[in-house]
Amino acid sequence: MVKTLSELYEKVKVDENYVRVSKDDLFNFVVKVFMKLGIPENDAKTIADCIVTADLRGIESHGVQRLKRYINGIRMGGVNLKPNIRIVRDGPSYAVVDGDEGMGHVVGTFAMRLAIEKAKKTGIGVVVVRNSNHFGIAGYYSMMAARENLIGICMTNTRPLVAPTWGIDRVLGTNPISLAAPMENGYLLIDMATSTAPAGEIEIRKRKGDKIPEGWVLDKNGNMTTNPDDFFAGGALLPLGGFGELYGGHRGYCLAILVEVLTGLLSGGSWSKYVGETHQKHSDVCHFFMAINIENFVPLNQFKKALAKMAEEIKSSRKHPEAERIWIPGEKGFLTEETRLRIGIAIHRSVFEELNKIAEDLGIEKLKLIS
Amino acid sequence: MVKTLSELYEKVKVDENYVRVSKDDLFNFVVKVFMKLGIPENDAKTIADCIVTADLRGIESHGVQRLKRYINGIRMGGVNLKPNIRIVRDGPSYAVVDGDEGMGHVVGTFAMRLAIEKAKKTGIGVVVVRNSNHFGIAGYYSMMAARENLIGICMTNTRPLVAPTWGIDRVLGTNPISLAAPMENGYLLIDMATSTAPAGEIEIRKRKGDKIPEGWVLDKNGNMTTNPDDFFAGGALLPLGGFGELYGGHRGYCLAILVEVLTGLLSGGSWSKYVGETHQKHSDVCHFFMAINIENFVPLNQFKKALAKMAEEIKSSRKHPEAERIWIPGEKGFLTEETRLRIGIAIHRSVFEELNKIAEDLGIEKLKLIS
Repeated sequence: MVKTLSELYEKVKVDENYVRVSKDDLFNFVVKVFMKLGIPENDAKTIADCIVTADLRGIESHGVQRLKRYINGIRMGGVNLKPNIRIVRDGPSYAVVDGDEGMGHVVGTFAMRLAIEKAKKTGIGVVVVRNSNHFGIAGYYSMMAARENLIGICMTNTRPLVAPTWGIDRVLGTNPISLAAPMENGYLLIDMATSTAPAGEIEIRKRKGDKIPEGWVLDKNGNMTTNPDDFFAGGALLPLGGFGELYGGHRGYCLAILVEVLTGLLSGGSWSKYVGETHQKHSDVCHFFMAINIENFVPLNQFKKALAKMAEEIKSSRKHPEAERIWIPGEKGFLTEETRLRIGIAIHRSVFEELNKIAEDLGIEKLKLIS
Repeated sequence: MVKTLSELYEKVKVDENYVRVSKDDLFNFVVKVFMKLGIPENDAKTIADCIVTADLRGIESHGVQRLKRYINGIRMGGVNLKPNIRIVRDGPSYAVVDGDEGMGHVVGTFAMRLAIEKAKKTGIGVVVVRNSNHFGIAGYYSMMAARENLIGICMTNTRPLVAPTWGIDRVLGTNPISLAAPMENGYLLIDMATSTAPAGEIEIRKRKGDKIPEGWVLDKNGNMTTNPDDFFAGGALLPLGGFGELYGGHRGYCLAILVEVLTGLLSGGSWSKYVGETHQKHSDVCHFFMAINIENFVPLNQFKKALAKMAEEIKSSRKHPEAERIWIPGEKGFLTEETRLRIGIAIHRSVFEELNKIAEDLGIEKLKLIS
């Protein structure tokens, strides 16, 4: 029986190929995994919180589905387990941080905390990071600021997967942009890849044996394809707006470059073409964090009320006949989180089996299913 | 005879419906127009520089084609000709500015100068503006920073023209985002609407009697249309990524909201639904300006070299068989500027006739054509 809107939304997303685990069990499991691999407990908790938050909000691609890749990365020596994260340049409203090849979640949390601290003192905090690794969902960091009544902005470059407009090589990252802000009764949370589709979505379609829509991916020779395998065989994602310029593909391409400038170039690190995967030495993923102390600009309550009013007015504007409703950025994720905290987190059976193998391999207790 | 790449590009864009005028003549003409309307000389020059820069770079929609609208706006009392632009909140790295209903170009130039000044002192300058008007091309302001070896970022909300994802009402603006940065041998310049197509492009198609591609516009009832008239009859633009979520339309929608948050909400002004046109009292257009002093983050030469190298590598990556070349953001505009400084600015005949009527009406000398 469907009881709430969030459960309705959850039902749409989850089918019989999924099992459910409790949030606390999953969190503790992930903490144990990383501690077994040699990461200090506090850092393991930071990483686990970020990964489990992705699963809670329904962002499968950045949840425990990714655990195996992180583990491989650590085992192959691509991650510094006890990094010396250093502030290499510092001012009242900015800093440059060297992540010392630590796990991106640990480096990112350090850097966003620093940005928040600076913003609380001076109104603005901008922290750019080089020499990090994959840090999970960008929205995790922007929400750190929003929960303290600041606007949080976060960007990262990623390994190259996206072709520039009129090009066919993978040179740019999917380079996500996130902004979170507090509003009356909740948060606004934008967290978006700057490609037409995120890479994780291609993986999910592949696992399900589905085709991908024409316009997401060019194969390695530059032909439009609907076969997800073509992507994994060296194809490239198209920028947001798609192929060429007719539907604004050059704008998605611009956004990817905007992110490269504010992450890799401003931090003195690498741009996506030279960014590696977690298992590689010096993968040099680069991030951008910004916190804005709303209270310095406008009374906080006025801002939170105005944002809630805008959200309400957008939601109550006329909807398309084909649409069930109009969503506000972040709303689907927060509804999913609400439901999953109550009924458990949905995990694909194949991912659950992978987690069991990891448990066996590391000698830790297997995850319990919710009966 | 085609001599240079920039001339080649210019030929593609311009046909026999265009005439040419010199940059200096056009600039002086626009200055005279605004002075006749009661705007002080220095401000008139600022406005003219911004408008003519748009025409120089080939952004017709924001060039002198818009002059008539500004003039009507002023005549109908929607603009404060001698605004008292005030800093209402101020810190070392940020400020909130009230534009006092001045011309957006004057207000915007004031605010970006302030952001640049702050960034030179503290590394970062963020200035948000309320109570302004249409300010022309966002890239004009980000380039002010780039020319002084800073990264410049600029956003503005606009009157409502864009439907939210799954909605059909015009509630969001086309809300452009611009970033400019210095590189060896030039500049990177991103300046993009966050809608699938900018409104100006629909006007241009309409004037030419062309259809628009399906996927740019919903008519007032939410049906997909290829008739530009449907847009002017109350239809709405679609966000970047198009209709629904399949091709990432929700991401363009997120970007429009990101801009609303950083402009209208952070400045204590209005979001797009309440933003008016130039002829309206209190149109309350709101802007965001940010300057980043590169030198505080990374040696300037290292940054400029790295950016030029990235641009070069993107351009020399494999191109699609249908493509002539891969462009870097801003490159087309700068090539157009180079050519137009030499051979004159192309203006559509109908716009030229409009300018002649304006000259007659205001009692100023008509524009000369380049013979």
